[in-house]
Amino acid sequence: MNLDDLTRTSGEWLRGTGSESDIVMCSRIRLARNLATYPFTNRASRGDKAEIEREVRTAIARVDPQLHYLDVHVLNPLDRQFLVERQLISRELMTAEGPRGVAIGPEENVSIMVNEEDHLRLQVMHSGLSLHEVWERINQLDDALEESLDFAFHSQLGYLTACPTNVGTGIRVGVMLHLPALVQSREIEKVFRALHKINLAVRGLYGEGTQAFGDFYQISNQQTLGKSEAETIRTINDIIPQVIEYERRARKELLENRRQNLHDQVSRAYGVLKTAHQISSEETMHLLSSVRMGINLGLIDDLEIPTVNELFIHTQPAHLQKIQGRHLEVDDRNVARAQYLRSRLANGRHQAN
Amino acid sequence: MNLDDLTRTSGEWLRGTGSESDIVMCSRIRLARNLATYPFTNRASRGDKAEIEREVRTAIARVDPQLHYLDVHVLNPLDRQFLVERQLISRELMTAEGPRGVAIGPEENVSIMVNEEDHLRLQVMHSGLSLHEVWERINQLDDALEESLDFAFHSQLGYLTACPTNVGTGIRVGVMLHLPALVQSREIEKVFRALHKINLAVRGLYGEGTQAFGDFYQISNQQTLGKSEAETIRTINDIIPQVIEYERRARKELLENRRQNLHDQVSRAYGVLKTAHQISSEETMHLLSSVRMGINLGLIDDLEIPTVNELFIHTQPAHLQKIQGRHLEVDDRNVARAQYLRSRLANGRHQAN
Repeated sequence: MNLDDLTRTSGEWLRGTGSESDIVMCSRIRLARNLATYPFTNRASRGDKAEIEREVRTAIARVDPQLHYLDVHVLNPLDRQFLVERQLISRELMTAEGPRGVAIGPEENVSIMVNEEDHLRLQVMHSGLSLHEVWERINQLDDALEESLDFAFHSQLGYLTACPTNVGTGIRVGVMLHLPALVQSREIEKVFRALHKINLAVRGLYGEGTQAFGDFYQISNQQTLGKSEAETIRTINDIIPQVIEYERRARKELLENRRQNLHDQVSRAYGVLKTAHQISSEETMHLLSSVRMGINLGLIDDLEIPTVNELFIHTQPAHLQKIQGRHLEVDDRNVARAQYLRSRLANGRHQAN
Repeated sequence: MNLDDLTRTSGEWLRGTGSESDIVMCSRIRLARNLATYPFTNRASRGDKAEIEREVRTAIARVDPQLHYLDVHVLNPLDRQFLVERQLISRELMTAEGPRGVAIGPEENVSIMVNEEDHLRLQVMHSGLSLHEVWERINQLDDALEESLDFAFHSQLGYLTACPTNVGTGIRVGVMLHLPALVQSREIEKVFRALHKINLAVRGLYGEGTQAFGDFYQISNQQTLGKSEAETIRTINDIIPQVIEYERRARKELLENRRQNLHDQVSRAYGVLKTAHQISSEETMHLLSSVRMGINLGLIDDLEIPTVNELFIHTQPAHLQKIQGRHLEVDDRNVARAQYLRSRLANGRHQAN
């Protein structure tokens, strides 16, 4: 797999297809698994890690030859960051030490990290609200791997994991939502409080502790013990339509009561993205968020959602540097980002207004 | 003269032609004159004013049949404001009472206000730095009017005027400069202090006491007594090239040291003007100022200076309302202004970047 080729494509999860895709960017499930015969990664020696990697890698190749394995420890820092930006590896795997890797499936729907916090972190992502589809896929993958790998499993506790918060099912079920109207109407905090009360976590685009850039929020479970996978998925599946409904109502209100302001904001955001000659990642995501909502509300008609989704990722630092083919400091990235945005957005049909 | 027709044209002084027109918007001279046989306007009865108007109007018609006379006292408030925005009448004439008027020449180079602070206020404006041309024209006009009007003149003091600050020559020689780089580099205050020291006044686009919207500044003399017209013109003509030189140097420095920032600022300004759906007059002038400098520095290549000059005037409140053909409150004007800007700027050739 040539990582440079990926700069010209984007994962299926950015396609903007699937159910409720105006608000739901993607659905994602990950499973934490460990091999029974080795210490957890944080206790494993370099030798252990190499053996774990070898075993897992062999199992992955047997399960699905389409899964392409990358030795993350031999990748340069830029390529590692590039994989983080694409949501294919975690920041933790990026900065870890020793033998580790990731197996990536076609269209980037599947990724399996090796020697992250747990020996295996399976991840399946799909565009739109599609948790059942995602679950079927990851469950199949998990079963297939279990045929040749001996996962640490306790008859009462379930799957054992490095961190006690993952013990049990080892599952994290997450849905990434675009909630610009709730942010603008300042109702988002109310939604967060309601979600926290029922033990759900809210995170930004790049996982735990990251800021919710571009008004993207990932809602996921926190509990893995004493609750089946099906129950966990049901909890999330039950709550998401309510959040979607809140966002739709907030958008409707904005359209009804502040249409002119909204149209102005959306149109200016698009205008700045098309004309800036230097722009930070933060401002880019902020403006893209307005533009994304504008397209969904029919206020912009010469741009497609998949393009905007892709721009959120392709304007990240490592992506920009790989697209340009060279190392860039912050200032130069801001210039390159603006240039990239202008060239991508100039192709849109011109708006009649 | 149908004032509505003027909404589709603009005065010659906005054409952006003539010497140093990247920085000098226009040159303007006005002369204050009073009829010897009537009290000054502020002391004149309604009857006096009517007689003054009749006399002056007849003289004007005799001097130049192309000068079109408008009865300002019968115009509606919108039309009066419209004339102020076009620099054809003063705010004072707009809000005065009783018989008063203005004679306007072809291409709006000449205007003669009647019953303003003084009985007559002659004004000639030309695009670019062209004080000699302007002086010749206004001097001719003054002489021609004096053939049939008896101007209040004192052998020692010179022309008598309602306000002592105008006694003597009654002349005000002004040059309107666009100084965005001096504003940005914060050197403008230094220039002002130097000008004040040599008794020159600095005003905004709409005369005394108005803010310098759009980085336009009018530099003019304050002294009318004990100094000939030629000397006054010479003083201004000597100082203007220095101010122009300061502005050019500031622009050069911006280009050399902050080219990227400048290009970004200029390009974003253009982008916002082309895409906003509501915009205030103040923001419009601020952004147009950036765009105007951008064109002159070669950073924007699909827009012409005369268009930008005209937009400064045509986006003013009364112009907008006359263009739309109806009364508009502030919010609606902001929407109409944005719409007008989009339609005017969409016609530009599209920029390659």
